Parts: sequence; C-alpha cells; structure tokens
Amino acid sequence: MKILVLHGPNLNLLGDREPEVYGHLSLAEVDRRIAARATELGMELRTRQSNLEGELVTEVQQARDWGNGIVINPGGYSHTSVAIRDAIAAVRLPAIEVHLSNPAAREDFRRTDLVGAVCTGVIAGFGWRSYVLALEALSSIGVD
Amino acid sequence: MKILVLHGPNLNLLGDREPEVYGHLSLAEVDRRIAARATELGMELRTRQSNLEGELVTEVQQARDWGNGIVINPGGYSHTSVAIRDAIAAVRLPAIEVHLSNPAAREDFRRTDLVGAVCTGVIAGFGWRSYVLALEALSSIGVD
Amino acid sequence: MKILVLHGPNLNLLGDREPEVYGHLSLAEVDRRIAARATELGMELRTRQSNLEGELVTEVQQARDWGNGIVINPGGYSHTSVAIRDAIAAVRLPAIEVHLSNPAAREDFRRTDLVGAVCTGVIAGFGWRSYVLALEALSSIGVD
Amino acid sequence: MKILVLHGPNLNLLGDREPEVYGHLSLAEVDRRIAARATELGMELRTRQSNLEGELVTEVQQARDWGNGIVINPGGYSHTSVAIRDAIAAVRLPAIEVHLSNPAAREDFRRTDLVGAVCTGVIAGFGWRSYVLALEALSSIGVD
Amino acid sequence: MKILVLHGPNLNLLGDREPEVYGHLSLAEVDRRIAARATELGMELRTRQSNLEGELVTEVQQARDWGNGIVINPGGYSHTSVAIRDAIAAVRLPAIEVHLSNPAAREDFRRTDLVGAVCTGVIAGFGWRSYVLALEALSSIGVD
Amino acid sequence: MKILVLHGPNLNLLGDREPEVYGHLSLAEVDRRIAARATELGMELRTRQSNLEGELVTEVQQARDWGNGIVINPGGYSHTSVAIRDAIAAVRLPAIEVHLSNPAAREDFRRTDLVGAVCTGVIAGFGWRSYVLALEALSSIGVD
Amino acid sequence: MKILVLHGPNLNLLGDREPEVYGHLSLAEVDRRIAARATELGMELRTRQSNLEGELVTEVQQARDWGNGIVINPGGYSHTSVAIRDAIAAVRLPAIEVHLSNPAAREDFRRTDLVGAVCTGVIAGFGWRSYVLALEALSSIGVD
Amino acid sequence: MKILVLHGPNLNLLGDREPEVYGHLSLAEVDRRIAARATELGMELRTRQSNLEGELVTEVQQARDWGNGIVINPGGYSHTSVAIRDAIAAVRLPAIEVHLSNPAAREDFRRTDLVGAVCTGVIAGFGWRSYVLALEALSSIGVD
Amino acid sequence: MKILVLHGPNLNLLGDREPEVYGHLSLAEVDRRIAARATELGMELRTRQSNLEGELVTEVQQARDWGNGIVINPGGYSHTSVAIRDAIAAVRLPAIEVHLSNPAAREDFRRTDLVGAVCTGVIAGFGWRSYVLALEALSSIGVD
Amino acid sequence: MKILVLHGPNLNLLGDREPEVYGHLSLAEVDRRIAARATELGMELRTRQSNLEGELVTEVQQARDWGNGIVINPGGYSHTSVAIRDAIAAVRLPAIEVHLSNPAAREDFRRTDLVGAVCTGVIAGFGWRSYVLALEALSSIGVD
Amino acid sequence: MKILVLHGPNLNLLGDREPEVYGHLSLAEVDRRIAARATELGMELRTRQSNLEGELVTEVQQARDWGNGIVINPGGYSHTSVAIRDAIAAVRLPAIEVHLSNPAAREDFRRTDLVGAVCTGVIAGFGWRSYVLALEALSSIGVD
Amino acid sequence: MKILVLHGPNLNLLGDREPEVYGHLSLAEVDRRIAARATELGMELRTRQSNLEGELVTEVQQARDWGNGIVINPGGYSHTSVAIRDAIAAVRLPAIEVHLSNPAAREDFRRTDLVGAVCTGVIAGFGWRSYVLALEALSSIGVD
Repeated sequence: MKILVLHGPNLNLLGDREPEVYGHLSLAEVDRRIAARATELGMELRTRQSNLEGELVTEVQQARDWGNGIVINPGGYSHTSVAIRDAIAAVRLPAIEVHLSNPAAREDFRRTDLVGAVCTGVIAGFGWRSYVLALEALSSIGVD
Repeated sequence: MKILVLHGPNLNLLGDREPEVYGHLSLAEVDRRIAARATELGMELRTRQSNLEGELVTEVQQARDWGNGIVINPGGYSHTSVAIRDAIAAVRLPAIEVHLSNPAAREDFRRTDLVGAVCTGVIAGFGWRSYVLALEALSSIGVD
Repeated sequence: MKILVLHGPNLNLLGDREPEVYGHLSLAEVDRRIAARATELGMELRTRQSNLEGELVTEVQQARDWGNGIVINPGGYSHTSVAIRDAIAAVRLPAIEVHLSNPAAREDFRRTDLVGAVCTGVIAGFGWRSYVLALEALSSIGVD
Repeated sequence: MKILVLHGPNLNLLGDREPEVYGHLSLAEVDRRIAARATELGMELRTRQSNLEGELVTEVQQARDWGNGIVINPGGYSHTSVAIRDAIAAVRLPAIEVHLSNPAAREDFRRTDLVGAVCTGVIAGFGWRSYVLALEALSSIGVD
Repeated sequence: MKILVLHGPNLNLLGDREPEVYGHLSLAEVDRRIAARATELGMELRTRQSNLEGELVTEVQQARDWGNGIVINPGGYSHTSVAIRDAIAAVRLPAIEVHLSNPAAREDFRRTDLVGAVCTGVIAGFGWRSYVLALEALSSIGVD
Repeated sequence: MKILVLHGPNLNLLGDREPEVYGHLSLAEVDRRIAARATELGMELRTRQSNLEGELVTEVQQARDWGNGIVINPGGYSHTSVAIRDAIAAVRLPAIEVHLSNPAAREDFRRTDLVGAVCTGVIAGFGWRSYVLALEALSSIGVD
Repeated sequence: MKILVLHGPNLNLLGDREPEVYGHLSLAEVDRRIAARATELGMELRTRQSNLEGELVTEVQQARDWGNGIVINPGGYSHTSVAIRDAIAAVRLPAIEVHLSNPAAREDFRRTDLVGAVCTGVIAGFGWRSYVLALEALSSIGVD
Repeated sequence: MKILVLHGPNLNLLGDREPEVYGHLSLAEVDRRIAARATELGMELRTRQSNLEGELVTEVQQARDWGNGIVINPGGYSHTSVAIRDAIAAVRLPAIEVHLSNPAAREDFRRTDLVGAVCTGVIAGFGWRSYVLALEALSSIGVD
Repeated sequence: MKILVLHGPNLNLLGDREPEVYGHLSLAEVDRRIAARATELGMELRTRQSNLEGELVTEVQQARDWGNGIVINPGGYSHTSVAIRDAIAAVRLPAIEVHLSNPAAREDFRRTDLVGAVCTGVIAGFGWRSYVLALEALSSIGVD
Repeated sequence: MKILVLHGPNLNLLGDREPEVYGHLSLAEVDRRIAARATELGMELRTRQSNLEGELVTEVQQARDWGNGIVINPGGYSHTSVAIRDAIAAVRLPAIEVHLSNPAAREDFRRTDLVGAVCTGVIAGFGWRSYVLALEALSSIGVD
Repeated sequence: MKILVLHGPNLNLLGDREPEVYGHLSLAEVDRRIAARATELGMELRTRQSNLEGELVTEVQQARDWGNGIVINPGGYSHTSVAIRDAIAAVRLPAIEVHLSNPAAREDFRRTDLVGAVCTGVIAGFGWRSYVLALEALSSIGVD
Repeated sequence: MKILVLHGPNLNLLGDREPEVYGHLSLAEVDRRIAARATELGMELRTRQSNLEGELVTEVQQARDWGNGIVINPGGYSHTSVAIRDAIAAVRLPAIEVHLSNPAAREDFRRTDLVGAVCTGVIAGFGWRSYVLALEALSSIGVD
C-alpha cells in the first residue's frame, strides 16, 4: 500500500511551539515515528507539508497516480476549504482526516468539518498518534 | 488498564440490520474482536450496551470506581445528550468517542457533537475497527 | 397484520389530565377503541407505553421480529430523539407517527420532527382517532 | 356534511408524472375514489384544483357559505402562503391539511408548515389515501 | 405541604467529584440538609434521584397523586427534555427548577431552558442551598 | 390626485368575519368611507381587491399610466411577495403600505416586510382608518 | 383628550442636520405644527424630548396619571429597548409608534421593532406628518 | 426543438421602466430578438408572460405535451416559489433559469434560488441576452 | 453585611399596575418587607430604583465602596445591557439577579440573560419574595 | 477583445475524473474548444489554471494591464474567497463567473457566491459550454 | 483642532479595578496622558465620562457646535446602541471608536459593532494608548 | 525592535486602483512612509506582500526567529483564514491587525474577524496611516 501523508498549515512548527498543546516532538520526529509504523504495516509513504491550500489540493490530486490512500491533517483548512474537499472527492481514494487535538473541544468555527465530510473517517485528539492510528485504519480497509 | 466499552442505542442490532452501512458482524462478534485486541494490549474490558441514555450515564459514572478509561459509542445520543457529556466530564477518565460511520458525512443534525467535546479524542468511520483503534489510542495515553 | 402501537411519554396520563386538550378518555379506553378497530381490520396489536426513550427504542427494535408495522406517538421525543429515529430507520417496517394534537400549531420547538422524517407518514391533530386513522393507513399500504 | 376538497398546484399532473413518487392514479381517478368514500360517509363534496394561490384562497373563503369542513392539499403553498393560512383561519371551519408524500422526509424548506399551523390536523405520506383518511377524520369531529 | 424533590442525572456524584464546582457535600448530606429545612417549614418530602429522563417523567407524574409541589434539578435534561416539560405542565403543581451552578454563566447550549419555561420559577447558582431556597419559595406560594 | 387603493387577499371577507379583530364593517362600507375622505381631499380613487398576488402586481403596474399614488394592503403577501415589491419599485409612484392590525404585535413571520421596504411609508393598526390616514399622508407628499 | 408626544434620541437635532433625510424643519417648528393640529382636534398635548432611554420610560409611566394616549418616536431605542416596551405595556394607554423615515427601508437592525409590538399601531415614513397622522389616529380610537 | 420561453412578473414592464437597470428594449422587442436567434438555431418558440405564479406553473406543466425545453425568468418568484419548482421538477424537461440582472449582486433575499435548484443551469446578468444564451445552451444539450 | 438592592426600570410602578402579573403590593411595601427580612438576617440595605441604565451602572459601581453584595432586578435591561454586566463584573461583589416573573416563560427576547451571566445566581418567578430569597442566599455565601 | 480565462482548483482533473458529472473532455480539450470559439468571436485568450487562491488573485490583477474581460471558474473558492472577490472588484473589468455544474442544485455551502456577487453575470450548469457561453456574453457587452 | 474625548460606561472605574485587564492607571491619569499628547499635537480637548447612553448621545450632538472630531470609547454601548450610532452619523464629524481591550478576542456579543460602523476608524486593544493613537489618527485626517 | 510588516492580497494594487477608497499612494510609497516612521522609532522592518494565504502563514511563522512583533493587513483573509490565525497564535509575538478601510462599515461578511481575535489589537480605517499607528502601538507595548 502506498499512502500520502499530508500535513497542512502550521504543522511545520510542531515540537518547538506550544508543546503543552501539540506535544514536544518536531515534525521530523513525528514523521520518523509514522514511517516506522508504516514499515511495520508494509506501507510505502509519501510525506508532504505545506502551508498553502492550493498545494495541498495538488498533492491530493497527484496521489491518484501514485497511491492507494491518504492521511491528511488539513489544519485550519479543515473548516473552510471547499477546494481540498473537492480534490479528495475527485480522486476517490480512501482518505482519513486526522487532527492532533480534538476540534469538538475547541472554538465554534472548528466544528464545521468540510474536509472530513468526504473522508472515510476522522481521527482526532491523539497528537502524533492520530497519524499512526490512521495508517492502521487504512491498512484494514477492504479487509474484514 | 481497565477499560469500559460502552455501546449506545441500536448497536444491539449490529450485523443483521443494514450490513451495507454497519458491516455484517453481530455485536457479539464485534465484542469478541474488541476483546481479542484488548487481551493483546493487556487490557481488561467491561462491555455494556444500552438503549437508555440514563443507563449510559450510570455506566460512565461507575467506571470511575473501576476503570482507567472509556470507549463510548453514544449513537444518536452523541448529538443531544448533555447528561452523558456531564457524566464523562465528571468522572475525569480519558474517554474516546467512537462511531461506526462518519457523522460528518451524514445529516446536519449529526454535526453537533456534545459528547465528543469532553472526550480526549474522536474516532469515526471505520466500522467495528473504530473500537479497536480507540483501545490502541487509550493504551498509549500518558506514554510518549 | 401485526402492528406495534407505541405510546410515548406522558400518554399514561391521558384522560384525567387536561381533557380540554387531549380528550377525556383514559389511555385504557383509548387502547380499547384502537383494539376494536384493529379487530375489524383483521390486525393483531401489541400495545406499549413508556416514558423512557430507550425503552421506546427497544420496543421498536423488537417489532422487527414480530410485527409488520408500527404506529408510534413519540410525544416529546418526536422533536429530540435521534435514537428512536435510528431505530425506526433500522427496522425498516412501515411506521406512522401520530399525535393527539397538531404540533404545527404549538411551540416552535415542536416544529422539528426528527422521528417523523423516517416514517412512512404522519397523522396529527385528531386525538385518539389519530391512532385509528394510522391503523387504517397501515392496512392499505402495499394495496392499491 | 359538506366538504370542500381542494387540490393545490401540480396536483393536476397526478398519475402520468412521477408515479414512483405520487402513485399511478390520475387526479380524476383519485377524485373518484375520494368521492366513493365520501358517499359511504354520507358526505357531499366540492372538489377543486388550482395552480393559483389566490384561487385557493377564494375557494377556501367560499366554503364558509356552503360547507362544514375543508380537506386541502396546498402543495408547495403549504410552506409559503400566509394568504391561504389567513383564509383558513378566517372561515373557521375544521380544515385538514393533506399531503401525498411526507414533507418531514424531504427538503428543509418543506419543514415550514404555515398552512398546517391553522388546521385541525395534518395527514401526510399516504398518497391518495391521505384524502380518504382526512374525510374519515372530518366525519368524526364533534363526535366522541 | 408534600413536596417531591427530584435530582436529575449525575447528581448522585455530588460531593466526591468536582467539589470546586459543586461543593464538597455528598448527595446524602445535601438531602439531609434539605430535609432539615423541610421539617422546619412543616413540609413532608419525597426525594428521588435518577439518571433516566423517563424515570424523572414518571416521578413528576406520580407527584400529582401525592404532593403539593415539586423541586426539580433536571441537570442536563433542562436544556433538551420536552418530555419532562410536558410532564410538569400536565400535573399542574407548582414546580421550581433549581441548579447548583448558574447555567447563564456556562456553555451556550445551557441557555435553552425547556423545563424552566413551565415552572413557577427558577433558582440557580447557590449550590445545595438552591434546593433550600426553593422549599422556602414553595412554602409561601399562595400566601401573601 | 389619482390614487389606486388596493386590497389584498382575504380583505373581501371584511366585516362579517372576525369583527373582534378587523372591525364589523364590510369591505363595501370601508370603501365607502375611504371614498368619502378621498372626495374631501380632492382625490380620485380606483379601488380593487384581489386574492391573487399576480393580479395585485398587475394593478400596481397599471397605476403608473393612470395614477399619482398607491395605497396598498398586501395582506399576507406583505411578508413573502418579491413580485409585488418589484412592481412597486418599478412604477416609482409614492406608495403606502397599510394594515388593519399591527403586524409587529403578531406572529414572527409577519415581521418580515418585503413590500413595505419599497414604500414611502407604512401605517398599521388602525382598522379601516389606516386607509384614510394613508390618503391624508399621500395628499401632503411633495407639500411642506 | 390629553396626549403625551414623546421624541426620542437625536430628534432634538431635527432640521439643521440631514434635512435631505429628515426634512428642514426644526423640532420646535415640528412641535408647533403638531400642536396646531392638536388644537384643531381638541387635544391637549404634553411634549417631551429626551436622549435617555430611562427618561423616556419615566415619561411614559407618568402619562398614566395625566393622559389618554401616547405618540412616541423612540428613535434608535425602537429596536433595542425592552424597558420602554415594558413601560408602554404597563400603562395600558393607547400608544402609537411613529418614525420620520421608514425603518423597513433601512439597515437590518432597524427591522426589529420591540416597542411597536406593544403599541396600537405604527406610522412611519412621513417626516413630521407621521406625528400628525398619529394624533388623528388617536382621535378616532374608540369611535367607529 | 420546441422551447417554452416564460417571462415572470414585471417583465411586461421591460423597456419603458428603469432602463438603466434592465435596458431600454421593450418586452416585444426582446421577444423579437429571442425569436430571431431561435430561428437561426432551428428552434420553435412559445413565448408567454404572466404576473401570476400559478399561471407560470400551468405554462410549465403544458410544456411537457408540446416542448423539449424551457427558458424561464421567474422574476421575484425565483426566490419564493415552491410551486414553480415542483412543476419544473415534474415535467422533467431541460430548463434554464435566466435573469436580466445578477441576483448574487442584489439584496440578500435574492440569494435563495428555489427554482434554479431544479434547473439544468442558470444564466444571469446579461439583460435580454441572458435569454439568447439560454437558447444556445439548450441547443447543445445532449450534443457533445 | 451591607447589601445594595437595586430595582430597574418600571419597578416603581409595582402594585397599582398589572397586579395579576406582578402582585398587588407597591414598591414601598415590597421594600418594607425586604427590609424586614434584612433586619432579621442582620443585613444593612441600600435600596434604589432607577429607570436609567446608566444610573444602575453607577449604583453598582458605588456598591464596591460600601457594600458586600448586590441584589439586582435589572428588568428589561437584563436582556440587553452590556454596561450593567460590565459593571457587575468589575466590582467583583457577589450579585444575584432577581425577577418577579419567570423570563423563561415569556417572550423569546427575554431568554437572553446578559446580566445574569456574571452573577453568582439567578432567582426568578416568585414576585417580591424573589428579593427575600436573594437576601437569604447572600447571607449564606461563604458559609458552608 | 483580450480575455483572461481562469480555471480554479481541481479543473486540471477534468475529463479523466468523474466524467458522469463534469463530462469526459480533458481540460486541454476544453481549452481547445474555448479557443476555437474565441477565434470565431475575434477574441484573444490567456488561459490559466491554478489550484492556489492567491495565484488566481494575481492572475486577475494582471488582467487589468492586458485584457478587456475575465471568464473565471473559481471552483471551490467561489464560496469562500474574499481575496478573489476583492481582486475582481479592484480591476474593474467585466468578469463572468462560470461553473460546469449548477451550484444551486448542490450542497448548502455552495449557495454562498462571494465571487459572483462582483461579477457582471453568472453562467452555471452547462459543462465546458459554460465557458463558451461566457465568451459570447462578453463579446456583446457594451453592444446593444 | 478641537476634539471631544468621550469615555463610556465603567471607564470611571479605570485603574483601581481589574488592572490585569485594563491597566493600573486611573481615568484621571489616563486623561492627563491623553491631554499631554493633545498639547503636543496642538489639539484642544473636551473630555467627558458618562455611564448613561443618552448623555453620551447628548455629548456627541454638542460636539458639532464646538469640535472638529470625536474620540469615543462607548464601552458596552458599542454593541447595542443605535442611539449613539445615529448621533455620530448625524453630526458628521470624523469620529474614532477606541477600546482598551480587543473586542474581537472576547465574548460573541462584543463582535457586533453598531457604533464603529459609522466611525472613520476603530482602534482597539492598546489600553490607554488606544486614545493617544486615535488623537494621532485624527491629527492627520485630511492631510496626506 | 524588529517588526514584520505583512501586506495581504490585493495590497500590491495600492495607489493606481480605487484611489477614492484606498488613497492614491502606491504600495512602494506606503512602504517608504512606514519605513521612515520605523526609523524614527528605532525599529527594523521586514516588509512582505503576498496574495497567497499560505505564504502569509509562512511569513508569520518565520517572524518568530527574527522579529519582536508583527503588523499584518490580512486583507480578505481576515474574515476566513483559520490558518493565519493559527500561525499568529503559535508564534506568540505581539501582532496588530490593520486595515486601510473600516470593515465594520462594509459588507456583513467583513464583520467576522478570525485573525484579529488572536492579535493584541486592531487598527482600521486610516489608510496607510493604519500601519504607522500600528508601529507606534508596538513601540510602546511592554512600556507603561
């Protein structure tokens, strides 16, 4: 299985900012842990981070030529991006939205989940482990 | 770790109703699989199903004397139950809301998540595997 | 035809409370009249009343093993119960929501009809006769 | 008893359009069946169809000089017509709103029921039988 | 005077959970203090706690055969229960809604007070003393 | 001055229906009184009543070839008719919306005043005298 | 008849500010014209202007000891003052809300008419003549 | 191809009213230009204008016996007419909603497009050319 | 304990207006009864009534130099006054909002409780006794 | 005439994804057809596609130095982009918003049309022909 | 330049209340600093504080006879006062709304800015320096 | 002090577009004036403009390694960008949102200020001087 792991805006700050909220691991370290689990699951990963909505759209689009699934943390775009939503709907790959924190427990404007509505599922609130759980979920889709 | 696994209303119907939506496994079979994974994770489970909001409240309350965490699928009560929300907030155990399907992809009234807002995290959209993922998430809380 | 007739919260008070609104017949007398009409229509009835949302859920669920249709007056749960709605949707029996009075003519919060949205039809405003009309409606479903 | 049966906009299309939704009977055939039941109930009917909101208002108004009750399917005007609502409130006859399909199960804008709020009751979801049930309901108003 | 004192969901947790919010007295101790004041006021009490909405409905209903007034803390059901509201409206006893904390100072969803709207009055924010104040209020209703 | 006096839906019922709300004068008598005042003010009137929104639109349109002002009681169409609003905006005559009763004191849906928003002014709450006051208002427009 | 004429906030600016909107007459001149018409109608006036909501409340209250009716232009308080509304409701005198301009044609926040909802009627859009029309309306209340 | 061209309320005023908004051509001249283009496209037209919602409903209904497509400018009914919407949905012909001006650039209440939601497409903002563009669009439906 | 008792707008009318709603006692008599109870509780009172929002703000402010608590009936300002709310929040004295009637049972605009949200508690619906209950509540704050 | 044709996010996927919704032509083929029609109309085109909101802003800005008009399909940004809206308003060129499908017939969040509100007109629902129709519309702006 | 500096409700408390929010300077000290800067800028100030909405209205009105600009901190009236808004609009002087704290970062009801909408600009969040910045802004209006 | 001055979308158009709204100075000239003032205040500036939301996010992020404060004009992204908001919250530098014009005086959608809610303060409505005022405000933060 080939999986695109997509980090949205501000995730490049991970680790050295607000560790009390997002944990003290850097994005590089998080990516290393995700990769380790992927290897165990026999998955090949492509990992990207971008602060630009449109680049996230492009990454999602390109996954259809390369991958079998998407793990996406759209960050703040989760709540406002019709473009990312449309991209995920268009590529028709299983996609899982992940969040480090739990949007349901935060500001009202984080309750709207435009992107999650076209995903297979949503995993939120477990820090970097949200990504790992998403890989595990993807590994069993289609299996029963 | 001792975990309460709580199934809300209509989950007793699992398997022989709407298999195209919820999968073809019965609740008993789902519980067996959850238990198998719990054993692997060294967890002890208490598993309950109830169609009554107040019984779910009571189960959550009793978990504080017995358990270390809660996995709860509140079903339709996710969107309307202040009482279950207040119970989870009161017992102050790590709790994870799970859903078989993805509420973000369903009717508007399922977008309100009163219960999830007081949980550590939310896992939705992976059928019975949502429960297993929740156990895995619980097993690593407090670890880094 | 085997029909579940389900009375929701506060219907046990029928007759000796607010007769100017709900009529002066007791629930027992109403049930007797419903039963009389059922006999004429060749129907077998199971009649239950509960003040508990979850018991109404359970009654609806059990109807799938026994009955061919449901007549339900969810009372105040009509406007708030996702759980009863999900139960009716799950059992896939023809179901008719009835009300003694006409919710459209009452408070704003009674305009939301979560339960009626998954029923075959709605009959409201005719006192105990709403139930009888519902039996007649059920007796002709599938006939033309 | 003299009853006005009023069919609103698009009901003249009945039968040869969208039979999977509205049944395969023409309005003429539906009217024949309604009339048959009225005869059994000892009722005299006046039956009208109009696509014009104002003509429906006028029909309702004239019923006060002639009839004892109204069965009205306001079609799309149910949700928007203050004028028909005011007419029904003015004539002070028992009136029953009927619908072939169940508005609670359709688009959001069909949840507003301006007309039904001034009727004695509402019967929806039973195809042409909604009219017959309304006649039966009217026949017993004032009886107990 | 015979008064029903009704504690809603999660009030059984009183005292040993979140004492900084709800005070450090157990429900038993609170009940003892309420009872002491009732004795001073010459009142006879029936005190019940339930986590089940429907049981609260039933308790309210039964008060009409036994009591002269109701003091109810509906907890989370204050904001969502049409069924309890309808029960209080039906029994036509003076009823007072009480809260330990002040809902106006909490989350938005606690601003809707379905139950309080059919009560004589509301007392909120005084911990266990809210109940005592309610007894005093009841003791003077009808007196001037 | 030539003035169109336009009565909307249900005003033909005036006098013999709901006199406690709308007064006991018939529309004919009201028109006579309006005409009497018009004569005193040196105005020529054209008076029309229609239950049809579109006929009211047409009457408003024709006023531009004949008249200098409009007094319109749109009845229930006040709150919903974009078409009448557009007609009044198009003919660019001074127009006054009148109501027998005071919409601000009635149901919420009567608070929306689509038609009044394009009128010179609004006079509401004075029964048939609302029309007479409107004539007086029109007689002084352009005078100071 | 003794009538209180009450001018709300900013009406003291009348005439030398924004004459294109509110006319070029000063408040003194407007008051003179209102008084002239009052004399013709055999009315005695008390005329007050205040920028203070509470003073308007007090003026309304005092009218009950002195007057038979109220003409009030609450200006900006029309849309926000529960206090003036409550005062008018309390004194139970016929009251007419007037406006120089037509709130229905202005900003959205001017559509809420808290004060007008407890008045006999509303007259808006006719500059200073709105007051004169209100006096005429008051002079005929109770007459037919 | 046989096309119904339907002009809604107030379009009969075209040309000699508000030319700065709607252009200076009369409806007759607009119809001539539409007809000229239809001839070029090999289309046969039926052109109707009505100020009555119900007549527009009837025209739409009759198109199913005669035509292959509909070009409709519902004017103000675009935003409020469930009846026209239902008629278009019922006849199942390709239909195009046109507007002379661009509703998205006007008042908020023009943002609701009940009719357009059941049309193949919408063309707005090009004056009389909106109709011609719609004919061209219809001429290529089914072609690729 | 030194307590400010603050009566908002229209409370000066108490007793001789709407006794069926607010009781037949004058404000002077109510104040006498409040004072009597204060004496029993060993409290010193400062009692003020004002119809002016800003004067109520000033009274609240001055209480910080003089008093230990506030009992305030903001009347209509409860629902709209950010200024009174800010004053109570600023002085940081225990404050109790009281109402003679029960706002939850009245018009929708009375459901917003801006002032109560910064008070210790709210007591509503007991006529003049609401004040007395508030004094009793204040007397026990800080005691347990 | 020099026209900018701007394709927003996900339009690069055209043709080989969801052909049942968007047609089976690739963006290259669509661009070829648009270009062919432009040639017939004597127009020079600049055609760009971008998934990035900000690049679309920049393209719109640059059109003012080069072009006479804009045809823009903002895709998902139609509903959320204040930045594109401001760019179009700033350059003051005639601009036409086009959509392949009809947003009025899709999800609620597609009803908000921030971009279309500053365009000359909107054409939606005709697949790639929406662009061609827009070119034709642009070719006649300023002509009559 | 002559500038009115207007402090709204609760600003008289400045300094000795909530210094962690509003700073530890008294209003007198703040006024002294504002005055010092005004002297540097060659401005003459009139400084007023009032807790009464109507007095703020009056102060704004009087500024037109005396001053060239207004700096106003309407405090809680920012969000609710149509009267102050109308006064500022009427006097047509450049006006700047200032706030000590940043309303965008506080409760939802502080997001509505009725007063700021008619001001030249808004400066919020800089404590007493918001006033000084406003003076500087005023000093350059009309200069470039 | 090192300050990032960030210009959002469409600010590159400054000066030669809509000078009546935004002033006639080019962005280069505005930047020169901002720089001049910065020099006087002893500040070092980094000035960037971008039309891309994600680039603005990146610029904000990088400021944490280099600067002591941020002046940001997010243009249209003020109202919709959760990503910029999250970036500002993450870097925890004092940030000031500026606008050339006053959003409170413009369209409704400009009332939502997602970005300003995490800034120290907001300055809007003073053209290019909004930036200079922001620098002055920043220069005194932490001073008293």
